[in-house]
Amino acid sequence: MSTGHEHTVKAFDQDIGQLRGLISQMGGLAEQAIHDAMTALQRGDLALAKEVRRKDKQIDAIEAELEKLVVRVIALRAPMADDLREVIAALKIAAVVERIGDYAKNIAKRVPMIHAVGEERIEALSLLPAMAQMASDMVHDVLDAFSARDAETAAAICERDNALDDFYDSIFRTLVTFMVENPRTISQVAHLLFVAKNIERIGDHATNVAEMVYFAATGRYLAERDAGEPGAN
Amino acid sequence: MSTGHEHTVKAFDQDIGQLRGLISQMGGLAEQAIHDAMTALQRGDLALAKEVRRKDKQIDAIEAELEKLVVRVIALRAPMADDLREVIAALKIAAVVERIGDYAKNIAKRVPMIHAVGEERIEALSLLPAMAQMASDMVHDVLDAFSARDAETAAAICERDNALDDFYDSIFRTLVTFMVENPRTISQVAHLLFVAKNIERIGDHATNVAEMVYFAATGRYLAERDAGEPGAN
Repeated sequence: MSTGHEHTVKAFDQDIGQLRGLISQMGGLAEQAIHDAMTALQRGDLALAKEVRRKDKQIDAIEAELEKLVVRVIALRAPMADDLREVIAALKIAAVVERIGDYAKNIAKRVPMIHAVGEERIEALSLLPAMAQMASDMVHDVLDAFSARDAETAAAICERDNALDDFYDSIFRTLVTFMVENPRTISQVAHLLFVAKNIERIGDHATNVAEMVYFAATGRYLAERDAGEPGAN
Repeated sequence: MSTGHEHTVKAFDQDIGQLRGLISQMGGLAEQAIHDAMTALQRGDLALAKEVRRKDKQIDAIEAELEKLVVRVIALRAPMADDLREVIAALKIAAVVERIGDYAKNIAKRVPMIHAVGEERIEALSLLPAMAQMASDMVHDVLDAFSARDAETAAAICERDNALDDFYDSIFRTLVTFMVENPRTISQVAHLLFVAKNIERIGDHATNVAEMVYFAATGRYLAERDAGEPGAN
């Protein structure tokens, strides 16, 4: 495409900019999906829940586009060392954001099951929006940190995941107690357990991204943490 | 490293062979982890459960090694088109196998919680080993299909995932019924719900790999399926 070194560098920067732009788009859609899924859950809004599931295909499509771009960038620019690492990081981060979208979609899929029994109010539901907001904020902030190559913000997000895990543990116990006291709603509350788990996993994935951002920015690993696996509760 | 084209091709084939070897090692460890986690769960064997958690670090280490190799292969060999796609596929498949190991580890982590209340027998436990065996066989066969570039076996694995999902749905209902009838064990059975979910997710991930293998071998996508997201139950 170009012969001069400067041209190649410029073209590569544009490519990286485009990769970042795609990830940022995916992140925006994932945040929106979390928000809409929780709204649908709160209101028992089945149409909105369906909309979340439909829109997830957009996130998947952008990921596919990004993958093609990565292959093209590597083939055309043959990036070395740090540049190559950044391209590979973009590929990995996109895969994680895609999964965050899947968790939001999964919450949306559970809305009809949770609201199956008429208008009966499940008290336990009121605990989840604050937890979802925490997770969604982590996703937002980690993608900002990625754009800004901000290692310190990335490290702070890992700390916030500990608070989210504690929140989850407390909700898990509350939901189990609720089941014991309201055996008629066990099936719905079991779905709420999975919703809480999905939110907790969104936080884990934001943390995974934070670790990648930290590594990409500093070349060092954040102290070995036990994140990135499904939490034990 | 070499100048002749033939030398470069040979070196690349060796690299690919090494990538496949690493993935195969990861797969073997992941299968073993599923098996050991389920044995620990059946027997309430806390030491074995701990061993599964400890060994998961080996899978993570091989994935890290594979990532470094991918970066080195791309930088040194500058593979084009199909070769590059194959290297990227290896990177993605390794990430999925790593997550399969995480699900097994997560099952192991729940063993102490499920066996918390003395020797009381939770009947519902007896349903899970057959389901885990199905998922583990899918992992085994999809990695064989990857080694053999066998598109037909890969496609068949996607079919088997439907049977696994049905199995999961049935176990979900059984566990909820069990909770209703045995409110004292709700907390433990809630953990079993997550174990069943983890197994179902292992099947989803095997299916994701099958789709990648199919695409790598044929250049075509398997008919758009709704896999790769956390199932709705």
